Amino acid sequence: MAANSQKALEYAHQHNAEFLSDLKELLRIPSISTDPAHQADMVLTATWLKRQLTNLGCEHAEIFPTQRHPVVYADYIRAGATAPTILIYGHYDVQPVDPVGLWKTNPFDPIEQGNQLFSRGASDMKGQVVASIKAVESILRTGSLPVNVKFMLEGEEEIGSPNLDTFMEEHKHLLACDVVLNPDAGMIAPDVPTIVYALRGLAYFELRVYGPAHDLHSGIFGGVVHNPAQALCELIAGMYDDQGRVTLPGFYDHVQALSAEERQELSRLPTDGQFYQEMTGVPKIWGDAEYTPGERVGARPTLEVHGLLSGFTGTGTKTVIPAWAMAKISSRLVPDQNPEEVDQQLRQYLKANAPSTIRWELTTFGGGPPSYTERDLPATQALVQALESVWSKHVVYKREGGSIPVVGSVRTILGAPSVLTGFGLPDDNAHAPNEKLDLPTWNKGIDALIQFFYNMEDTLQVNK
Amino acid sequence: MAANSQKALEYAHQHNAEFLSDLKELLRIPSISTDPAHQADMVLTATWLKRQLTNLGCEHAEIFPTQRHPVVYADYIRAGATAPTILIYGHYDVQPVDPVGLWKTNPFDPIEQGNQLFSRGASDMKGQVVASIKAVESILRTGSLPVNVKFMLEGEEEIGSPNLDTFMEEHKHLLACDVVLNPDAGMIAPDVPTIVYALRGLAYFELRVYGPAHDLHSGIFGGVVHNPAQALCELIAGMYDDQGRVTLPGFYDHVQALSAEERQELSRLPTDGQFYQEMTGVPKIWGDAEYTPGERVGARPTLEVHGLLSGFTGTGTKTVIPAWAMAKISSRLVPDQNPEEVDQQLRQYLKANAPSTIRWELTTFGGGPPSYTERDLPATQALVQALESVWSKHVVYKREGGSIPVVGSVRTILGAPSVLTGFGLPDDNAHAPNEKLDLPTWNKGIDALIQFFYNMEDTLQVNK
Repeated sequence: MAANSQKALEYAHQHNAEFLSDLKELLRIPSISTDPAHQADMVLTATWLKRQLTNLGCEHAEIFPTQRHPVVYADYIRAGATAPTILIYGHYDVQPVDPVGLWKTNPFDPIEQGNQLFSRGASDMKGQVVASIKAVESILRTGSLPVNVKFMLEGEEEIGSPNLDTFMEEHKHLLACDVVLNPDAGMIAPDVPTIVYALRGLAYFELRVYGPAHDLHSGIFGGVVHNPAQALCELIAGMYDDQGRVTLPGFYDHVQALSAEERQELSRLPTDGQFYQEMTGVPKIWGDAEYTPGERVGARPTLEVHGLLSGFTGTGTKTVIPAWAMAKISSRLVPDQNPEEVDQQLRQYLKANAPSTIRWELTTFGGGPPSYTERDLPATQALVQALESVWSKHVVYKREGGSIPVVGSVRTILGAPSVLTGFGLPDDNAHAPNEKLDLPTWNKGIDALIQFFYNMEDTLQVNK
Repeated sequence: MAANSQKALEYAHQHNAEFLSDLKELLRIPSISTDPAHQADMVLTATWLKRQLTNLGCEHAEIFPTQRHPVVYADYIRAGATAPTILIYGHYDVQPVDPVGLWKTNPFDPIEQGNQLFSRGASDMKGQVVASIKAVESILRTGSLPVNVKFMLEGEEEIGSPNLDTFMEEHKHLLACDVVLNPDAGMIAPDVPTIVYALRGLAYFELRVYGPAHDLHSGIFGGVVHNPAQALCELIAGMYDDQGRVTLPGFYDHVQALSAEERQELSRLPTDGQFYQEMTGVPKIWGDAEYTPGERVGARPTLEVHGLLSGFTGTGTKTVIPAWAMAKISSRLVPDQNPEEVDQQLRQYLKANAPSTIRWELTTFGGGPPSYTERDLPATQALVQALESVWSKHVVYKREGGSIPVVGSVRTILGAPSVLTGFGLPDDNAHAPNEKLDLPTWNKGIDALIQFFYNMEDTLQVNK
């Protein structure tokens, strides 16, 4: 076994340049799922992936259309019926690039600067998808794959995966697996191998406040009209108390308390206030002082404003009372909250607090529940060993602040737990201008995935 | 006298179509002063006005450059040294047209629909400028002008007249006058001739709140970073109490109380809550219940949000913690407030209330003090008689909610009081999409201005 993994690792090291070249090719396709103008790029990306998986040797590689962006499926099932089956999940869509003026390079022209590869999607998560494919390739080109693998690569993660659950329901048998490998989680630092065992869920909203029938002259009408921008600010301001706690009714009712053991384990994380201050550049860290910064990000829910728009926002001055004001808002959820419950809580808050001087409208976008994977799962331990052998360090266990709703969905629909990994770093600027990938970490990640597939063979008895 | 004014009125009625055609020509030039892209249009507009005034017979018509947009000056001084001299003020610049998608017609292609002329600037205030010129023309073509007139038409009113005071200081002698006629005020309704005797001042700001160095992933960082959009909303929400009163420290200290007599006079205004509700389409009127709606607009100060911008505002979802958030804010001031004082109060509020988790930056734009003209001024009474003779109705006295900073400036620099009139209506959509002018009211306005110039001859003894 060790000899086999050694050959695969050598293959990976020898083909490093080809791997990177393939990743760059994938990054050049601007697969922004939220923007209808990139519809054709989504299809191009799916086609690129199918070709890669076919070249890998997958017997079955297929692009499944959905209501919006297709799912790429492929499998390589030659390890025998008793070998574990791993479903590798990934998404090939990326976030929008605005504000595009803040990018130092073209977001879709990947460029290396030192050890960093700058491009939208490099870290989240085309880099992780290519790492997974290349780990399998390294094994297949140097020996035989000790496990069965299936790929499920979707194009709608950044818009809330509206069609993935239906796809999984319709293809339950095709997707049947023992465990899901999801490399959409990240590491804390290049030298801190990390196991993510919990994820926050997401509930996403657009709140619109309407006042007058059209923009008004603020001189002629100022004093008798509740300014919708003012009213929106009042509603948003009221959503937090001065301790940094969300005020929606019942918001914390189903939030699981942290045990003393878990708080102890989480305290090993190097993510203290100073870490976050340096990472973000804020003048001062903020939040509920009853929890450490690492706990607040991993184990506590939030309510976040992602965007504000109202009235005149150009250069200079204009004295209107705007007709409406809009906010994009989302909540990150932790076990045992769920998106439907927060939707109701937000509506209840608005009903109770919105004044009769304005009208409001709340649109709910796709979200997902939080998730939690047992730390002693055999597949998790296979991953722990893989990471520790590559990094020669003990892993740390982390609750991830981000949301990967598919983790909950595969548990519900396919009955499979997920092991979460990924080789993105906190300063990769995911979802922000100048997204990048740390290439040394990425290369180690490919090694770790190779080890993981070999380690998984040993979990057979435990797992089946 | 009556015979002379009769001839002038007849001329005006006979040349109605030409007057309207000239107005449309002027409206077709998109003189948006705030937008550098329209620099050439500003010069075109000034040139058009100079040509009109030269054709009128003005001995001296000149375009005076300023730091930004030129002032058009012209005079017709043949009534003799003992006749009163009236300085006619106007502005030829217009508000921006965004949100341009809400216009039902091209903002710079004036179109008549029934009695309404739709175009940016039709009401505010190219219509009023043309009315003034045409009133003088009607007198000059049918007799002799009983008063001396000077025109001062600026191109920077909608950006706070940054260069007008300097222009007036430098040309004090040229501009010397007994009274200023300022037709930039409006009427309450087509059948309610209105005298505006007080105006609110203006102080305009842009507030920016900065948080992280760049946009952040709200999953990875949500819970430890004070969201700048949230912080901005908190600051704005705190600027009003729940009675609709501004909370800036000392904000009301210098606000003149209304006398019982003035409240009685103002109560004759038909601008009650229902009026404002119908005019604006809001679900319910808002504001400080200790004052009537008419008093709130005319005699009470405001703090208004004109625009909000932060983070992701496009279609769909994006989960960023934005790096910054911006609000455009202004205060309408009443005697004896002044812009400098409110600037200080806002900065004091921000210093006291902005948390250390964010940074803020406040930019101050040009504003102006509030103003007040005595109701028994002879020129005011000349205007009262003119309006009452054309409308056959008693005028009502009104405090105007809008700001015309030049009224304060001409009082200070030229030592002249202003009489305020104008034939715009509250539903003209000034500063908003689908601005329009009520043409029957405009035509009556030209008649009233003709009468006013004749009436002014009689104020000679009183005035000098």
